[in-house]
Formats: sequence, structure tokens, C-alpha cells
Amino acid sequence: MKNFIFQNPTKLVFGKGEIARLNELIPQSVNLMVTFGGGSVTKNGVYDQVKAALKGRNFIEFWGIEPNPHVETLRKAIELGKSNNIDYLLAVGGGSVLDGTKLVAAGIASDEDAWDIVLKGFAERQIPFSSVLTVPATGSEMNGGAVITRAETREKFAFGGNYPHFSILDPEVTYSLSSHQIACGLADAYTHVLEQYLTTPGQSRLMDRWAEGILLSIIEIAPQIKENPHNYDLMADYMLAATLALNDFIRMGVTQDWATHQIGHELTALHGITHGHTLAIVMPGTMRVLKDQKEGKLLQYGERVFGITEGTVEERVEKAIEKTEAFYRSLGLTTRLSEEKVGNETIEIIANRFNTRGVAFGENRNVTGDVARKILHACL
Amino acid sequence: MKNFIFQNPTKLVFGKGEIARLNELIPQSVNLMVTFGGGSVTKNGVYDQVKAALKGRNFIEFWGIEPNPHVETLRKAIELGKSNNIDYLLAVGGGSVLDGTKLVAAGIASDEDAWDIVLKGFAERQIPFSSVLTVPATGSEMNGGAVITRAETREKFAFGGNYPHFSILDPEVTYSLSSHQIACGLADAYTHVLEQYLTTPGQSRLMDRWAEGILLSIIEIAPQIKENPHNYDLMADYMLAATLALNDFIRMGVTQDWATHQIGHELTALHGITHGHTLAIVMPGTMRVLKDQKEGKLLQYGERVFGITEGTVEERVEKAIEKTEAFYRSLGLTTRLSEEKVGNETIEIIANRFNTRGVAFGENRNVTGDVARKILHACL
Repeated sequence: MKNFIFQNPTKLVFGKGEIARLNELIPQSVNLMVTFGGGSVTKNGVYDQVKAALKGRNFIEFWGIEPNPHVETLRKAIELGKSNNIDYLLAVGGGSVLDGTKLVAAGIASDEDAWDIVLKGFAERQIPFSSVLTVPATGSEMNGGAVITRAETREKFAFGGNYPHFSILDPEVTYSLSSHQIACGLADAYTHVLEQYLTTPGQSRLMDRWAEGILLSIIEIAPQIKENPHNYDLMADYMLAATLALNDFIRMGVTQDWATHQIGHELTALHGITHGHTLAIVMPGTMRVLKDQKEGKLLQYGERVFGITEGTVEERVEKAIEKTEAFYRSLGLTTRLSEEKVGNETIEIIANRFNTRGVAFGENRNVTGDVARKILHACL
Repeated sequence: MKNFIFQNPTKLVFGKGEIARLNELIPQSVNLMVTFGGGSVTKNGVYDQVKAALKGRNFIEFWGIEPNPHVETLRKAIELGKSNNIDYLLAVGGGSVLDGTKLVAAGIASDEDAWDIVLKGFAERQIPFSSVLTVPATGSEMNGGAVITRAETREKFAFGGNYPHFSILDPEVTYSLSSHQIACGLADAYTHVLEQYLTTPGQSRLMDRWAEGILLSIIEIAPQIKENPHNYDLMADYMLAATLALNDFIRMGVTQDWATHQIGHELTALHGITHGHTLAIVMPGTMRVLKDQKEGKLLQYGERVFGITEGTVEERVEKAIEKTEAFYRSLGLTTRLSEEKVGNETIEIIANRFNTRGVAFGENRNVTGDVARKILHACL
């Protein structure tokens, strides 16, 4: 096991009706701005619940944080916050609203341009913020990371440093999600686990078991959610799984991959494919191209998650990859670039971007532009 | 899933050599007291590491926090802290030193007598404290609870509210533990998981999987640790397992039992049997007496942890209980009261104590003094 430091300060407030606690959870003395996405919360009742909980308090609202939040939009929120002396933010929405609000929290506390904060990779200062989550997927409600898009250059990068003070997760808010949103959310959570698990075996028995526990749970609930998207216990399991998939709990003392995410971010930036969906397309390709490097873990994954115990090493590895792709497809997602009309031109742009930036991802830092090209070809 | 609030603020600093970070982790401005047990840290090198890390800083030392820390001893530490205007504590030791220091932290911040704080069950105020853990077992390094003994009345009660600011866990410090200490630590961690898991099935798929993941890991490492108690990776798994077994991570949205602990505390208070050892004795009895109530979970536990799939429901339940008792015995612990020369007299004292206090423990609040008597008879 590698040495590690773990600390996750976020207070998780979980369960039906908990949005009503907002007033007690947000300090009375703060000057509050509430941030929103495009308006779905006005239709599903969440906006009304938030307004009711904050009745009698003064706050301003910022609307319009889009999916894959644009720095261009967030600069406006930062300006509004600064001009109103805002010192506390509440994000109400999905991962994009939360991620965007993390940058707003950092931007209000800084004189730097927001994109410079993203490029630096880490927010040194921020005003406090909390969240009411509406789409289980990214884990942003209980982690320090955020992914921001610069629309003018079609670039998408991550930065870190901002944990929410608290996050309210009421599974009932998921009842209004579309089946595509749920599919992408489940794919996102599943792939978050794989990014932290599918590296080298033997680093931590416990982290392996916990990662496998989330994978097994998601595989178990996914088909049931399709049949019963308003079943409270199922949606509670889904919501908690997405949070625990990316809140630092399963990465103690182990290496991590994240190459699939880096490639997926490019597909979103260039083609607007939903984040979770890009992962369903890229992950099987990453597994195929790096199957020798990941052989030990692929065998363990195949056996413990899918019960694959028969056949040669090669056959078991191939079976584990096939089962993974089949799982993503079972969610109702396509898993091939060709199905999304993405071809060689995009692959070359991504490979060149990685090579130009001189980056290399993955647990062995060997996923260069050239390896990314191979992975994307395996996804055609 | 039940509604829940989760927040664990402790910073976990894990790995070899990390004690050297003490100086950067403890704020420079504080007036520090370091608390210790009986002196084993002077023999295993931990005291020297702490002294070296804090070189050049002023601090006072309090020695002599005993196993099952006595309020009588802790009152002296509180007095010493108050008279020296101490505003930060560092506990260096096992669960008893940490638990005791939690009460010292509360006592220094309060005008109440220390035992009154314990009886109230919750410390409202405390000065900050951190820890260097030397015995993986209780989870005290990353939870808010503590168990304190009043020697003059042979009573032992828990109170809550104090999370360490940080805890340093260096697996190498475990190399000097005796095989009995390790056995009791593994039994303690294993039973902590059962207390949070062995209730009603179907509350949370994820919490079930994570609990089972810790149990499977402990079962896997226990015999290997016997052979190789100086294997770093094994001891790291053991140390992390003990922390994750009782730091709130596996109790999100689920009911809990804790009857075995309450009965075990009495055995320690009355006979001085090591805490982890009392659990190895009581847990199989709890399972036997409450097997109807816990049937669904016993079946799941038997199947997922021990691979028990054959036989009638009754046979599978019995097999799961047998396997549990066999696991405790495999650690080198006795599992019967008679083996510890404890008999009916003690059983009656415990039953009467519970009945007199009017308490009832367990997930269904039905383990009264009379049920405790049945459980203890099943442990003879």
C-alpha cells in the first residue's frame, strides 16, 4: 500500500425531505447566491423546495450554468457574486452546476481569471459553498474536483481543491430524470470506480473489495431501475453509489488510471457527447489496448464482479472486457465511436492535442497521444 | 435506506515514516500536552520518533493512561492540562490512550466532572486533539466515540462527540505488538463490522458490500499475519481495516446492533478481559439467541463471507455461526466464558445491571437484561 493522506470534510445529508434543512445548514450571517442550471428544477419541484426552505432569507440567484459548464458563463457568475459581495454559494443541480459553482467559489475569492485557475489545476482560495444534488453521476457533491469547458477553444480540463461544506441528497429528486440521464449517471459512477480500481492488483485488499462492492451494486440495480425508476430504495442505492464512487473513499493507498476520462473529456469538448456516455465508449477500448498491463486486475475483476472463472487467461480477460461493454450497452448507451458518427478526423485531433501538450495519462503515465490513438481506434 | 447525516472530519495520515510529519500537522501556536499509556512506546521506538518530530517545541507529557482508561486517571490529566493552560492534545498509543484523551479533551474544556460527561453520553465542548496510533483495533483514531471505565464501581460506558483532527497510522509501529494484542485487534475490528451489518437485510446494498469487504479482508489476512507479523502490506491492510471498520463509513442509512459490545464492556469491567476478546466470546452467543431475528442477514453473511450455499435455512444459519466462532478461535482466542472461568454469578450481575438501568440494546432494542442472560448462557 502506498502512503496516503485522506480527508473529506463534506457533510452528507441524505434522504427524503432533507432539502427542508437548508435554512439550518447555511449560516445565518452569510450573503448568499444560489446557482442553477437551465431550469429543470423549476419543473420537478426542487426550486420550490429550496425557496420554501430559505423563506425569509435574502439571496440572489444565478441561472444558466450549462452541461459541461463553460468558463465564459461562470465568469458572469463570478462578476455577479463579486459585485454583490457574495460570501457563500449554494449550487442546486447536477454535476455541471456543482462543478461550475466550484469555479465560481474560487473565482470570487481570487483576482485571477477563472480559466487561469483551471489551468493551474488547483484553487488556492475559495468562498464556502454547499449543494443540493439533482443528478447522481459525477460525485462532485462530495469531492474536491471540477471539470470546466472553455467553449471558444473547445477545451475541457479538471481542477481541484473545493469540497462542498454540505450536500443534500434526496433520492426523490431523481424521479424526474430521463432514462438517458440515469444511464449516463450509472455509466459515470461505474467508470469512476474502474478508473481507481483497474490498475495493478495487490495494492489494497480493502480498496479492491470496496470498489468491487460498488460495481456489483450498480450491476444489480441498473436493470431494476429501468423497470422501476420511482422506487425509492433503488434510487437511494443509485444516488449513494454515485457519491461513494468518487469521494476519495476507494482510492486510499492505491494508484489510479483516469486515461479514459481524459480521452472522454475530449469527445465531449469536440462533439458534445454526454460525459458518462463518452466513458461507456472509451473504457472498453482502454481495456483492450492496455490488457497486458492490466491483466492481473482484469482477471480479478472478471472473477469477482462477473463470476468468470473458466478458460485461459486470455479468454477470461476478453470475457471481462466483453461483459463490461455489454453492461454499458444494457444501460441503453452506444459503446462505439462509429455509432456516434465520430471517426478518424476526431481521433487525430485528440492524439495531436495530447502529443502537443506532452501529456501521458494512466497509472503508468504511458497513455500518450499515440496510445490514445490506439485506444480510440479500438473504440470505432 | 434510512435518512442519515454523515460527516467525518478526521485527516488520516497513513504510511511508514509519517510520524515525522507531526511538527507540520500540529499548529505552531498551540500549548501542547502529549498523552501516553504505560510506556511501551519507549521500547518500540515510537516515543523517540515523536520526540524527534517535535524537536524544538515545548510540550508537557502525561503518562499512565491504562487499558480501559479509568476516569480516576483521566481526572489527573485534566487537572494537569487545566493548570498548564493546555489547548491541544496529542494522544500517542492504542485505543485506550485515544479514548482516554477524548475525555481529557472534553474535561479541559468543561467545568463538569469527567464522569458526568461520560454519563451524559456526549461531549459538547472539547479542545482539539490528534493521535499517533500504535494498536489497530478500536477505530478511535477516526471516530467520535470513546469508552471509559470507572474503576471504583467497575462500570464502563461510552460517550461520543470527539473526532481527532488528524491521526497518523504507520503500519510499522505494529511490529512490536504481541500476538494476543493482534488477535484482540482483529477480533475487535471484525466484530465492529458485524455490529453494523448483522441486523436486517435489504437496507443498503452498498453498506452490505462494504461490510462484507472488510470481513473478507480480515479473514484473508488473519492467518497470514500469524505467519508474517512484520510484513508491511499485511499490517497496512490490518491497520486500515480496523480504521474503516468503525469510522462511520459502513453505517450510512442502516440500523445497528451493538448489544455484543454492551455485554462485552461488562465482562471487561468485571473481569478485566481484553475488549476484543470479550467480543469473540459474546458475538457467537448473540448470534445464537437472536438467530431468528437475524436470519436473513445470517444467510447473506454465510453465503457471501463463507461461501455457505448448501443445506436448509437452519443448517446454513448454524454453519455461519460455527464459522464465526471458528474464526475467532483461529485468532488464538477462547470463545467461551467457561474457558475464562466466568460463570453464573457474573451472568446474574450483568443481567441485573441491565435490568436495573432499564436498558435494551440491539437493532430492535430488545436485548434487555433477561435477553443478555440468555446470550451469556449461550456463551458458557
